[in-house]
Amino acid sequence: MAKAIYFFANNKADGNAEMRSLLGGKGANLAEMTNLGIPVPPGFTITTEMCDQYAKNDQKFPSTLAREIDTNLSRLEKVMNASLGDPVNPLLVSVRSGAASSMPGMMDTVLNLGLNPDSVDGLIKKTGNEKFGWDAYRRFITMFSDVVMGLDRQLFEEKLEEEKKKAKVETDIDLSVEQLKELIEDYLVIYKDNTGKDFPTSPKEQLYKAIEAVFKSWNNPRAVKYRELYNIKGLLGTAVTVQSMVFGNMGNDCATGVCFTRDPSTGKNKFYGEFLINAQGEDVVAGIRTPDPIEDLKKKMPDLYKTLIDIKNNLESHYKDVQDMEFTIQEGKLFMLQTRNGKRTAQAALKIAVDLEKEGVIDKKTAVLRVDPHQLDQLLHPTFDPKAERNIIANGLPASPGAATGKVVFSAEKAEEMAAKGEKVILVRIETSPEDIGGMYVAQGILTARGGMTSHAAVVARGMGTCCVAGCGSVHINYGKNQFVVGGTVVKAGDYISLDGSLGEVILGELPTVEPKLSADFNKIMKWADEYRRLQIRTNADTPQDAKRARDFGAEGIGLCRTEHMFFDEDRIAYVRQMIMVAGDVKSLSCLLADTKSELDKSENVSNVELDKEIKQLEKRLEGPLSLYNGALKKLLPMQRADFEKIFKVMDGLPVNIRLLDPPLHEFLPKEKALQEALAEQMGITAKDVVQKLESLEEVNPMLGLRGCRLGLMYQEIYDMQVQAIMEAACNSKKKKINVVPEIMIPLVGTEEEMRILRDEVQKVADGVIVKKGIKVDYKIGTMIETPRAALIANQVAKHAEFFSFGTNDLTQMTYGYSRDDIGSFTPMYESRGILDGDPFESLDQEGVGQLVKMGIKKGKLTRPSLKVGVCGEHGGDPSSIEFFNKNRLDYVSCSPFRVPIARLASAIAAINEEQVVDE
Amino acid sequence: MAKAIYFFANNKADGNAEMRSLLGGKGANLAEMTNLGIPVPPGFTITTEMCDQYAKNDQKFPSTLAREIDTNLSRLEKVMNASLGDPVNPLLVSVRSGAASSMPGMMDTVLNLGLNPDSVDGLIKKTGNEKFGWDAYRRFITMFSDVVMGLDRQLFEEKLEEEKKKAKVETDIDLSVEQLKELIEDYLVIYKDNTGKDFPTSPKEQLYKAIEAVFKSWNNPRAVKYRELYNIKGLLGTAVTVQSMVFGNMGNDCATGVCFTRDPSTGKNKFYGEFLINAQGEDVVAGIRTPDPIEDLKKKMPDLYKTLIDIKNNLESHYKDVQDMEFTIQEGKLFMLQTRNGKRTAQAALKIAVDLEKEGVIDKKTAVLRVDPHQLDQLLHPTFDPKAERNIIANGLPASPGAATGKVVFSAEKAEEMAAKGEKVILVRIETSPEDIGGMYVAQGILTARGGMTSHAAVVARGMGTCCVAGCGSVHINYGKNQFVVGGTVVKAGDYISLDGSLGEVILGELPTVEPKLSADFNKIMKWADEYRRLQIRTNADTPQDAKRARDFGAEGIGLCRTEHMFFDEDRIAYVRQMIMVAGDVKSLSCLLADTKSELDKSENVSNVELDKEIKQLEKRLEGPLSLYNGALKKLLPMQRADFEKIFKVMDGLPVNIRLLDPPLHEFLPKEKALQEALAEQMGITAKDVVQKLESLEEVNPMLGLRGCRLGLMYQEIYDMQVQAIMEAACNSKKKKINVVPEIMIPLVGTEEEMRILRDEVQKVADGVIVKKGIKVDYKIGTMIETPRAALIANQVAKHAEFFSFGTNDLTQMTYGYSRDDIGSFTPMYESRGILDGDPFESLDQEGVGQLVKMGIKKGKLTRPSLKVGVCGEHGGDPSSIEFFNKNRLDYVSCSPFRVPIARLASAIAAINEEQVVDE
Repeated sequence: MAKAIYFFANNKADGNAEMRSLLGGKGANLAEMTNLGIPVPPGFTITTEMCDQYAKNDQKFPSTLAREIDTNLSRLEKVMNASLGDPVNPLLVSVRSGAASSMPGMMDTVLNLGLNPDSVDGLIKKTGNEKFGWDAYRRFITMFSDVVMGLDRQLFEEKLEEEKKKAKVETDIDLSVEQLKELIEDYLVIYKDNTGKDFPTSPKEQLYKAIEAVFKSWNNPRAVKYRELYNIKGLLGTAVTVQSMVFGNMGNDCATGVCFTRDPSTGKNKFYGEFLINAQGEDVVAGIRTPDPIEDLKKKMPDLYKTLIDIKNNLESHYKDVQDMEFTIQEGKLFMLQTRNGKRTAQAALKIAVDLEKEGVIDKKTAVLRVDPHQLDQLLHPTFDPKAERNIIANGLPASPGAATGKVVFSAEKAEEMAAKGEKVILVRIETSPEDIGGMYVAQGILTARGGMTSHAAVVARGMGTCCVAGCGSVHINYGKNQFVVGGTVVKAGDYISLDGSLGEVILGELPTVEPKLSADFNKIMKWADEYRRLQIRTNADTPQDAKRARDFGAEGIGLCRTEHMFFDEDRIAYVRQMIMVAGDVKSLSCLLADTKSELDKSENVSNVELDKEIKQLEKRLEGPLSLYNGALKKLLPMQRADFEKIFKVMDGLPVNIRLLDPPLHEFLPKEKALQEALAEQMGITAKDVVQKLESLEEVNPMLGLRGCRLGLMYQEIYDMQVQAIMEAACNSKKKKINVVPEIMIPLVGTEEEMRILRDEVQKVADGVIVKKGIKVDYKIGTMIETPRAALIANQVAKHAEFFSFGTNDLTQMTYGYSRDDIGSFTPMYESRGILDGDPFESLDQEGVGQLVKMGIKKGKLTRPSLKVGVCGEHGGDPSSIEFFNKNRLDYVSCSPFRVPIARLASAIAAINEEQVVDE
Repeated sequence: MAKAIYFFANNKADGNAEMRSLLGGKGANLAEMTNLGIPVPPGFTITTEMCDQYAKNDQKFPSTLAREIDTNLSRLEKVMNASLGDPVNPLLVSVRSGAASSMPGMMDTVLNLGLNPDSVDGLIKKTGNEKFGWDAYRRFITMFSDVVMGLDRQLFEEKLEEEKKKAKVETDIDLSVEQLKELIEDYLVIYKDNTGKDFPTSPKEQLYKAIEAVFKSWNNPRAVKYRELYNIKGLLGTAVTVQSMVFGNMGNDCATGVCFTRDPSTGKNKFYGEFLINAQGEDVVAGIRTPDPIEDLKKKMPDLYKTLIDIKNNLESHYKDVQDMEFTIQEGKLFMLQTRNGKRTAQAALKIAVDLEKEGVIDKKTAVLRVDPHQLDQLLHPTFDPKAERNIIANGLPASPGAATGKVVFSAEKAEEMAAKGEKVILVRIETSPEDIGGMYVAQGILTARGGMTSHAAVVARGMGTCCVAGCGSVHINYGKNQFVVGGTVVKAGDYISLDGSLGEVILGELPTVEPKLSADFNKIMKWADEYRRLQIRTNADTPQDAKRARDFGAEGIGLCRTEHMFFDEDRIAYVRQMIMVAGDVKSLSCLLADTKSELDKSENVSNVELDKEIKQLEKRLEGPLSLYNGALKKLLPMQRADFEKIFKVMDGLPVNIRLLDPPLHEFLPKEKALQEALAEQMGITAKDVVQKLESLEEVNPMLGLRGCRLGLMYQEIYDMQVQAIMEAACNSKKKKINVVPEIMIPLVGTEEEMRILRDEVQKVADGVIVKKGIKVDYKIGTMIETPRAALIANQVAKHAEFFSFGTNDLTQMTYGYSRDDIGSFTPMYESRGILDGDPFESLDQEGVGQLVKMGIKKGKLTRPSLKVGVCGEHGGDPSSIEFFNKNRLDYVSCSPFRVPIARLASAIAAINEEQVVDE
């Protein structure tokens, strides 16, 4: 049988830090510290294997375990020169759970185990402190009843309250010895009433029961669920550490404290922590007494302080990372109770990683691994002054990080108007639509009542780097009254509110913000990350401004430029609308005309008066719409060309992936009456015509309707115009010595023929421009993989596509059958019940959607080994998704500009981790 | 080198009927007839291999082919005792293409090849008919120019018209010899003008060119596209048959005709056909002269008639199927020019198959294979009297087969009102919604302006077996004016129209209909089909009436019973609406209450006045909605139970698969103002409240929103009520000795947890009923696989599901990203351009969606080998989809009642074909 128990005492331990899976994190570190010669209260750890065998053995101790516990207990008693339950010199122990990774549901600690009516006398004799003794006993009974036996702690708390009331005292400490004894009597009665048994006086029985309770807690529903949710696999169970007690509350030569080897807030290499004289560990955390800064220990206990400093240095250089430690001083002797890697802020994480590398403690790879990419967000956006008080009036989704403060406005127009006057505004809308772009751009922050993490507001705000709180359902907006109501509070247009986009908080009033500053440490870590990552990092950017910012953040190209976002600019939306209003007529009349002409061709009578007349009439009817249609396209062409020229300039030398028109046309038509009237006037039609057109374009499920390449096949002239604009811009740029690398992307492909036809068409137009301009520009044609079918038949699609860009937003929508605009009604419930393992629009569903991504890559490369593969959905900026994309050999990920640094770091970490797994 | 040319003459041929792939259908049958001793004009067939080699050889004859053609031509000249181009005794030949399966784009026939200025003299001398000679020459020049050289036939037709005008005659036959000669001169000029060369006078050159043209036509774009579309693979090319000419137009001892061995319309065993004395083949078809019935040949040419009868008997018993034959009689001698299996009506197909089996010609399996399942539709529905004249005013989609005639009504209420008075009505709606069910049920036919083959109207109509024309966009309905306009025609309420649901025609006026009658032959074929099929056939039925009809048609269970269709009955929709109106409030208030209570539990102060007050308030607010909610559920329970009891009774002994509530709730709320007001009054609220509720439930993409199991998890009480109703009905039925086999189906599952939680809940409620009733009922719990994700993680879902039913409608929608309500704007264009290979909602997309079906089955069975797998989408009634389902080992298909016979036959054919492939 494998070794069941690992003993540690006096600088010698059976285990070490490598044995986390067997001894748990706590047990392994206690053993390690012991071996390092650091003073640790002696004890022993029962392995996780025993926990496993206990479960398999029908919840009974494995055959020899009880004997081994006894043996190790004897050894401990010998080392400590005291005995469990001894009436003269009692040993007290703590019993703790500890798995390889921490999780909720595991059993809490039981302290002071070994006390009974006899040994409590011994403890009092030994310490000479009667009140201490009885209080320790009282606490032990409470903990054992609650933690081991599962009794309601409330029963004991109520009795304590009663006793305090009776004694007319405020706190436990003020109870007299007699009152404590009385309380203990009551506790023992409660125990018997609720368990039907006497409280165990045998210390061995106490110990066995506590150990069993730890074992059992491994399989309690909460812990099982947690492991399932976080996909924690391969653990055998929890270990149990039985350790002799030390007390920081036995007098003024006692103390207890927590400390960090460096400042976890700034990262500065400065010993950091706090302590309390004559106190127990929990008192430091509880906040009843204010602890002293750790430096003060130097004055109060100079020798012990020196020892602590030595230990701190020892531990940091040993673990090669910042340590978070707990210590207790009992009667002038220092004991270390725990050490673990310290949690830290983003800023600290960067500094510590860079410093440790500089100090030669860790190498660059390790330094990169020490920074959590998720944390970087807080460095890239404004934050509120941490000291400012927050009057939170609502909580929404943290849709785009940062902090913003400004006056409430309820329309994009108003936002632009006020911003033009230099006012800071917060745009508050039920939901946003592409028409609001202008207002969103000038606003400090955006608040919406509806929509999820990937709603229009959220996606656009993240792209712009603007703070946004979305889907804040408790905010009831009344555009008519120019106000919103939340809870009892009425907020009117012009009132100040503040948004915390990282937490999703809506705060009443104006809060001071702190602008972000990127440190040299940040740049250094980014540089190192770039050395290790394999994935190229691109950005989703629709404007030269966004592109510039992303390039500054290190983007190596544009992975998604949404041409339609340009359509909303004030100078062109009118033409876009004109084009849409007549496009349908142009198509149907042209069709009819072609049919009639071919009828004429087929007719045997050479001259057919009727048909001739019809053709003439049709030609006449077509004239008007056609000239409006072509006129609009002609106006849009130079505008789009100019846009692309600007973007090519910013991205000189880097690839720019441009997606042809994607959204359903009705999104571009005005929904507001005044705008409808304006459009009617511009076109010389009635407002009713506009409304009718809008209605005729409405769809039951627009997500699954006439959009993407379906539009491109229907209205080929629009795609032709866009391709012409792209290629003319490319030629013009090249003339100016700008190195252009255009990639033209066809959206929403689902069949091979869609891809083939449009590839041919795009190529024809593009080559036409090249010939006409006489300038050779290399370009690529590819597609987004965003319908499940495209992934399933990727081998066919790849025949005609030079690249795939996975549009994982839409792919997720269609694979789950989720409309991201509508699922807010049930997904919070789904997440809380564990039906969804997090938001699949935030972090890629590797299990389901991921299968389609893998399939798409595999099948695509089978047809075309040189196929370039990237991702341009929101997931391109999510660390765990990036790990998946790295593993599955994508060429690049593309994300919003502010996520570029996160993606750079996350992909470096993914690459390093993968390499290390391969190395092992 | 393989044999390049197969000769046939005088009862002896190198080839036979088995050599279709080498000689084409035509060539193989000519060889077969020759070997049977049947008089066939001698000739030879060049193999498809030569066509393949021609293409591979850079469009040149393979090395020895010219020599072999010469050899065979000499042999033919010898047999015919005439020579190609001979000025005295010329041989004329026809050149025809012929592949193993017929397809468009292949080259047309060239007749009279071998004519030139010399041989035309020979022909005239030989026949003594000058006009015949010159006309033959004229025809040859036209055909050669058009078919072989690709000149525009119009050029020749125009010249002919000119000549006729000049000669002042009506028809070609009236042209004199001189005029014909003149015309030929003109033709030769046209040829030279358009080709730059003289018309070839060398008969060999004519022959080689014609053969090459046939070879080339194999790879013309139209043919390539056709093979691609219809997935015709493995063919080498087309064969070429060169055959000596015979003429049916050389005098009154000549004739030509087409005939069938049995009546292709009724199937009766009676020689059937028609002929013309002194005519060419095309004259019989062209309809200029009225042909005589074949019996008349008995009087006119008794000997030849007897020969023809012998040949007919010989061919039918040889081919063991009805033959469609062409013959020509030249100067008293009969020649057979073609034989092939005859096309026939559904009724004839059944009778012929049954008769041939009875006669011992074929076995039962073959008989089953002889009936095309698609054809059965026409037997199951009313049809129009074929003699009635149709004034077609519009064409829509053939959404549900049959014929209907009645008065136009524009609302479901009106339809019910008029039907109650015994009037026949056609319901005309822009689109239908579940509220219209009552009116749809009583209508003779349904016409909608919007919606595709799987729109609400189409699906419901097919289920009911009611004739329906859907998506008829040219019909402009004006509810206000109570009329519709189509083209120039105004049709008012009360006017008669007729619908042909099989063709999608809208006809003005009242047309007499013929009711369907199922023959004994039908029942016999169905019985035989049942012997061979492996798939179980179930039906989609929501009412006892539908279930009964389906069972009469041979359904072996219900594969999909949509509980929500019952919700629309007049007596229950009010309660359903009441339930929906308050469901949201009940949920949010209950949640809030639970939160507040748990806050109270956690609070340290035992009595918290504030919280207590809040709880009391919440409880009070919850009271009203909760009592309405539970009240509605309590009312619905006995109604649903009664529904299920009726269905169980009809389906005694057979499985009944019941799907729990699926559609989004807003579908149940009234859209019309009057109904909204009625609901408001019923509930004691304002109409505005109703509208607000409706708006709050509206979704951007309802297909992808809160529906299916998402509803079931949100409003578990509704599912609980439904399960209770099902199981109580099951217990009650079993008490009455009815054998019930309930299957409870959870819709729209996409994650394992959805399935696990709902499985547990359904099981709990069901077992509760069983215990309470004290009656043991075996039931199954399973799910629909209708999201792509469900198929991808089927291994996980199958842990908790005893059956899968593929909901291929929704699966198709999500896999393509198509909303069937919206794609009508582009799918017609997609189908015509070949982007879609047919409607994927009609016939399963095996390439894309099919992959998910296969994956779902494989993964599901991996987890649970006993998993029962079926399909309940529209595809369950489509023959080619059924072939796929049979191949992929589904257990059953479920389709609308009227498709049950089709499914029975199609699955038998699939099983037999599969068995035969395995046998080979």
